[in-house]
Amino acid sequence: MIDRAHCVARDRSDPLAHCRERFHIPEGLLYLDGNSLGAMPKAAPARLRQVIEEEWGEGLIRSWLDAGWWDMPRRLGAKIAPLIGAGADEVVATDTTSVNLFKLLIAALALRPDRRVILSDPGNFPTDLYIAQGVQGLLGRHELRLVPAERILDAIDESVAVVTLTHVDFKSAQIHDMKGITAAAHRAGALTLWDLSHSAGAVPVDLEGAGADLAVGCGYKYLNGGPGAPAYLYVRRALQDSIRPPLSGWWAHAQPFAFDIEFTAVAGIGRNLCGTQSALAMAALEVALDIWRDVDMTAVRAKSVALTELFIALVEQDCAGFGVAVASPRDPAQRGSHVSIRHAEGYAVAQALRARGVIGDFRSPDLMRFGFTPLYLSYAEVFDAAAHLAEVLRSGAWREMKTDAPARVT
Amino acid sequence: MIDRAHCVARDRSDPLAHCRERFHIPEGLLYLDGNSLGAMPKAAPARLRQVIEEEWGEGLIRSWLDAGWWDMPRRLGAKIAPLIGAGADEVVATDTTSVNLFKLLIAALALRPDRRVILSDPGNFPTDLYIAQGVQGLLGRHELRLVPAERILDAIDESVAVVTLTHVDFKSAQIHDMKGITAAAHRAGALTLWDLSHSAGAVPVDLEGAGADLAVGCGYKYLNGGPGAPAYLYVRRALQDSIRPPLSGWWAHAQPFAFDIEFTAVAGIGRNLCGTQSALAMAALEVALDIWRDVDMTAVRAKSVALTELFIALVEQDCAGFGVAVASPRDPAQRGSHVSIRHAEGYAVAQALRARGVIGDFRSPDLMRFGFTPLYLSYAEVFDAAAHLAEVLRSGAWREMKTDAPARVT
Repeated sequence: MIDRAHCVARDRSDPLAHCRERFHIPEGLLYLDGNSLGAMPKAAPARLRQVIEEEWGEGLIRSWLDAGWWDMPRRLGAKIAPLIGAGADEVVATDTTSVNLFKLLIAALALRPDRRVILSDPGNFPTDLYIAQGVQGLLGRHELRLVPAERILDAIDESVAVVTLTHVDFKSAQIHDMKGITAAAHRAGALTLWDLSHSAGAVPVDLEGAGADLAVGCGYKYLNGGPGAPAYLYVRRALQDSIRPPLSGWWAHAQPFAFDIEFTAVAGIGRNLCGTQSALAMAALEVALDIWRDVDMTAVRAKSVALTELFIALVEQDCAGFGVAVASPRDPAQRGSHVSIRHAEGYAVAQALRARGVIGDFRSPDLMRFGFTPLYLSYAEVFDAAAHLAEVLRSGAWREMKTDAPARVT
Repeated sequence: MIDRAHCVARDRSDPLAHCRERFHIPEGLLYLDGNSLGAMPKAAPARLRQVIEEEWGEGLIRSWLDAGWWDMPRRLGAKIAPLIGAGADEVVATDTTSVNLFKLLIAALALRPDRRVILSDPGNFPTDLYIAQGVQGLLGRHELRLVPAERILDAIDESVAVVTLTHVDFKSAQIHDMKGITAAAHRAGALTLWDLSHSAGAVPVDLEGAGADLAVGCGYKYLNGGPGAPAYLYVRRALQDSIRPPLSGWWAHAQPFAFDIEFTAVAGIGRNLCGTQSALAMAALEVALDIWRDVDMTAVRAKSVALTELFIALVEQDCAGFGVAVASPRDPAQRGSHVSIRHAEGYAVAQALRARGVIGDFRSPDLMRFGFTPLYLSYAEVFDAAAHLAEVLRSGAWREMKTDAPARVT
């Protein structure tokens, strides 16, 4: 029997407990949705005030150099790099995850001109599939082949140009085997393109160790970069100069201020930039990235596993018999930092939890999704959230709620 | 002989004088670079503090609906629409100018599948040409034909799929004849794609009046949306549903939260969205757009003409014999809201002006570019800036400056 005192004790010995102080956590909220939008770093308001009032307001155009705005995509990329096992010169922060996916999918196909298959998983994040469909429609010569992730290894053959997967499944939290899949892809002469949106910042990622070719990811989930934060992309060093950028804007030019008529791509990762990025959005993300400087990723992973294990144990202990089932892998080695719980009326249950200040989200048709951010979530909060879930189920409070999910953001 | 008292008197009767109070203008700066980065609206710091501390910090994921973040691309688009002669349902704010150009160039070519020519002008903003070159390389079946703007009408024939031009030339400030060129394009069965970056907010734009098909523009110049502000795009209503978006991210989906595997484009302008935008960047742009609510564009144009006429007259009056030449059209009907002055050592002169607090910029090889933002610039400031230019030239102070422009942002 797990009780609250046990959880409070674990918080006292949590080596990451001090990290919570770096975030603003709203009073009375149990926030299990950091996998959708991370909490605000306490340093964000002051830094943004500086960017707005001093750098923009006073410095104006001069701040592109004097305040370092021009370097932001590369500088932030270098700060993301250690979180994903990449070199500082292999990552830039820019654009959105979807736009970056488009760039790198096109690049991958151009690197394998004789191959026709984009291989993915029907459980991949839908926008990843939509982007692949857009590329397919645009170029008119590829097949998007969807194979369930558990059978992807068998589906990699010499027709495949690129295997594109989300590292941690957005619904189930299943971790895909980046190293094994990349090795199989390389054996068949294919490239890999990973979406790290649901892993970076909570699950260790080792792109170089896995030999991964290409990757993209999101700045606003576990990286805590703010609503709609800039995304990032990674290109393995050895591939960088063979990419011909399809979105060849002036930030990708070797001499952007020469104003040549001809496009000449800059060497290295920078050729995957395109247009001017928001200095405000970049500054918010940078504040969030600076939090990681002294954070041990081993401790992050250990706490992520402990929090999800605790939640699953509490659900099994207190919610049995109420129609819930754990829809995430039970083996923590297979599981990312969120837990999905299936319930036939999951949307109504999630709404009843929201009414009690427990913020998770819902994914159609029947999944309640709870995210566990190791940097700022406590064991006691996980206990309290599970207790609310048990109480909502026991009391039937969810029956008062709307049962159909509208087209909405959660 | 124009003297300072004359300019001060004009400021007293300026119907837009009150607009200056809506912006923060740094003490002692003569800012003639609002065409590169507009000044900060005074309302920006408080609004951004609210977005950051309340909406992000407290509201967290709930703010996507509760604080209206989800609606921002369409809501801001509707606020840009009246400045460019478009309907509220014809514009969205999103991504960067370069990315939006890519989207609409691809869309235009798909709408004219039997035609091979992208027609533009070698003086077009280089990123516009780079994007066209990227599209050319990607699709491998188009020709980018560059013809000087003054001969563009003659070059429009039935091989042309799309004519793409910047409405106001970024170097010379020449205004291209949107209506005439669009009519000629339509007669030949071609489409037009306009870049409004150097016109919107300073020069009247009437997309619907001109019958223009497609347009993009920048949020951080005369719209004052902040460094790297979101850009926007316009699609004529009648064309909207025939566009198949190449960057088909989930924001373009008819039901983004159904998480279907298949992409189905939403009806209308929204299908040109792609991924999640920064709520911070959007909020800053929205504050800037709200300034325009009671601003009469006729008065803006009249003041823009008066400021550029004044500057040219002062340069002619006080700088004659110092190797300068006006490189912008003398006819104000042909001229946008900036003035380019040619000088063999223009970079050094611009640096000497900066040292005196006169901020213009420089465009290779020999153009000093001075932007005149009607909303916040006074006639007296224009007088003072011209006086500094005369003094720098007379004294030879520029000879102390570096003479070669580095790869830099101005």
